[in-house]
Amino acid sequence: MKFKEETIDKETLYEGKIVDLNLHDVRLPNGEVSKREIVNHPGAVAIIAYTADDKIIMVRQFRKALEKEIIEIPAGKLETGEQPEETAKRELEEETGYKTDQLTKIGSFYTSPGFSDEIVHVYEAHTLYAGTVATDDDEFVELIEVTLDEADKLIESGDIHDAKTMFAIQHVKLKRIQNS
Amino acid sequence: MKFKEETIDKETLYEGKIVDLNLHDVRLPNGEVSKREIVNHPGAVAIIAYTADDKIIMVRQFRKALEKEIIEIPAGKLETGEQPEETAKRELEEETGYKTDQLTKIGSFYTSPGFSDEIVHVYEAHTLYAGTVATDDDEFVELIEVTLDEADKLIESGDIHDAKTMFAIQHVKLKRIQNS
Repeated sequence: MKFKEETIDKETLYEGKIVDLNLHDVRLPNGEVSKREIVNHPGAVAIIAYTADDKIIMVRQFRKALEKEIIEIPAGKLETGEQPEETAKRELEEETGYKTDQLTKIGSFYTSPGFSDEIVHVYEAHTLYAGTVATDDDEFVELIEVTLDEADKLIESGDIHDAKTMFAIQHVKLKRIQNS
Repeated sequence: MKFKEETIDKETLYEGKIVDLNLHDVRLPNGEVSKREIVNHPGAVAIIAYTADDKIIMVRQFRKALEKEIIEIPAGKLETGEQPEETAKRELEEETGYKTDQLTKIGSFYTSPGFSDEIVHVYEAHTLYAGTVATDDDEFVELIEVTLDEADKLIESGDIHDAKTMFAIQHVKLKRIQNS
């Protein structure tokens, strides 16, 4: 790696429930020293799941960072020691009441490589059966089921507006076109 | 908004060059109080641009948050008072030396609505002409031009692994299939 930036000093500014914030002094490739603000995150999963009548299962929730409600595919952060696929099954059931035994990974991505190590693993679930809703104490979500056309309209209106949901919807569209 | 979470107290934990970190005490819909860790970011732009021989212009750079180099489409954060389209033109030229007068917005998304307000505006540029590279003092990038097939292989190998680049590549594939 020709552009590697070695940490020469690191200050932990915050250790939280969701994120940590670390300030690194780094040695640049040209020998100079610079600062890097890094938000560390345990990583997350997201699941695009379809009902028997081919609707996509989504959740509407208030996002404090955005000061508004948006509609997203079910998602959640990785707990310590948990494999992403386990997290995906757990979060799908907890948030939506739907269970699945069958997940296919459709991709993963770093959300903001410029300042964060957060990675999102995205799964697809087809066969669903009834489970038990069990949202966290501070989590309030409304279940919504939409067709692919309705999802497109929700993107246009800005109700769907996050990376993982838009990535998953594009993935489904591409796959269906390629298989048709 | 039935799930709105009102801020009842806010502590600014950090104000940085790229991000601020704010800890909110919020009133939940059920009346309880909870904490929300919010990373505020000015927003960013990304540009998918094509050379005359239809290659996609990318940059390889070391990302401290990931402790490795990855390959991304050109991108950069919004400066105060700057319109996203201006930022897109400026960043494209500064990072790659290519200029454009013609940008089409292909979408925008929140990268991590669970903890951050960062939004990325993604543009497409077709007609390019020669400009002047002018990277920041602490920015080291290598220019790469890849075909769409090569981009797919770079996704498989993990060299391309970020939300904006994967979203833009999916968009191009969908558009080309729909137009063919």
